[in-house]
Amino acid sequence: MAGSGVRGAGRSVASKIAVLLGAFTETDPELSLGELSRRADLPLSTAYRLATELVDWGGLERADGGGYRVGLRLWEIGALAARSNGLCDIALPFMQDLYDATHENVHLAVLAGREALYIEKITGPGAVSARSRRGGRQPLHATGVGKALLAYAPQQLLDEVLAAGLKPYTPHTIVAPGHLTRALAEVRRTGVAYAWDELTMGVVSVASPVFDADGRAAAAISIVGRSTGANVKQLAPAVHTAALCASRQLGRRGRT
Amino acid sequence: MAGSGVRGAGRSVASKIAVLLGAFTETDPELSLGELSRRADLPLSTAYRLATELVDWGGLERADGGGYRVGLRLWEIGALAARSNGLCDIALPFMQDLYDATHENVHLAVLAGREALYIEKITGPGAVSARSRRGGRQPLHATGVGKALLAYAPQQLLDEVLAAGLKPYTPHTIVAPGHLTRALAEVRRTGVAYAWDELTMGVVSVASPVFDADGRAAAAISIVGRSTGANVKQLAPAVHTAALCASRQLGRRGRT
Repeated sequence: MAGSGVRGAGRSVASKIAVLLGAFTETDPELSLGELSRRADLPLSTAYRLATELVDWGGLERADGGGYRVGLRLWEIGALAARSNGLCDIALPFMQDLYDATHENVHLAVLAGREALYIEKITGPGAVSARSRRGGRQPLHATGVGKALLAYAPQQLLDEVLAAGLKPYTPHTIVAPGHLTRALAEVRRTGVAYAWDELTMGVVSVASPVFDADGRAAAAISIVGRSTGANVKQLAPAVHTAALCASRQLGRRGRT
Repeated sequence: MAGSGVRGAGRSVASKIAVLLGAFTETDPELSLGELSRRADLPLSTAYRLATELVDWGGLERADGGGYRVGLRLWEIGALAARSNGLCDIALPFMQDLYDATHENVHLAVLAGREALYIEKITGPGAVSARSRRGGRQPLHATGVGKALLAYAPQQLLDEVLAAGLKPYTPHTIVAPGHLTRALAEVRRTGVAYAWDELTMGVVSVASPVFDADGRAAAAISIVGRSTGANVKQLAPAVHTAALCASRQLGRRGRT
């Protein structure tokens, strides 16, 4: 325990809470107090005190196994997030049309740092199993929505993505910077981004950007299906149309 | 400003942050600093300092008008909430089937205090405009999901709901305690709850409870459509079946 009294010192309580909440991830949605303390780099006693206060208001919940997990009250407050809500309100009807026509996974994603953050997902019993999850993140270079967003992002983001290295997920993931740059130019030419077996074998993504009133790619819509199904080229016009409809709607809202 | 130095005194920073975040609502998703300070009962300087720290980690965002709103990072962490995720994972395929068959709004809701909290909503361009919103709350006595949940809740919750008074939303809202008690007995008899024009005129809700492994009503599924459409009696078996399928699945998960 030597030195534990200074761990976390100098940080504000708000930032400690931020680190505590940020310790939960998709792969570790439930954490023991010890793990929480370790990940947040806080003394056990501090982690316990803050976690207890978070449980009191519902930001965290006690899990059956004795650990902690994110609470429903935090979910409820998060559901008020304006960016997520505004985009979803506009895109959802068009996304639902895409789902009705294809019965494949339909996604809405935005840029979050150097990743794509999925803010909406429609799926059904017949859709291919995809890695995506509402609230989940995926790499930009290996997904349709990621390429659609990156193609219209400032050059600086592409530089950062390339500098961080293009991680291979399958033998088909784009790992050469020149290859990615050319693929993004093609996205800008056609308005459609593809990812064929690039994140998951057997899965293809077809995506298109949604532009705001200032012409920025605020989000991207995608259909994700089986890459062995041959109708992908037919999906592209549907996705592109849905994204254009959503863009027109978003642009209109931006000008009011 | 007299006395502002003691406002908020004695409360922990975590609880101040909880109050700050809880100040945002569906009707007021964006708040000025002054409004935030007033609602959280904190001095302006404290509200400003905490809001600034929350903006730093993404829990809040600055709005275009200069105010604050809930940030995408908080939404992302909230999306990890176990209860919401577990129920949605199980119920979504059945809900999507219901949507495919009806093209009406399909909801998943849980109990939150004395209200129904909507954790999932599927809607499309043809569905009737409903008050529901993912993350939103509605009264138990005036909604299908609310009655389905209340029918299987401990007697104490019904007592609390009755003690709080049955607020009328339309001329058809149940406002007499005896009437509500009889309606809930009917729900327990049939497994299906209705709300005809009780929250919004012209809108009918048909709901059924989803039971967990311990036989508790963990959630409720509903279809919400136009009450003038005559096919409501046909919807009931569909909703009931979907809820039974989800219950079986949830029960199975509970036993592993």
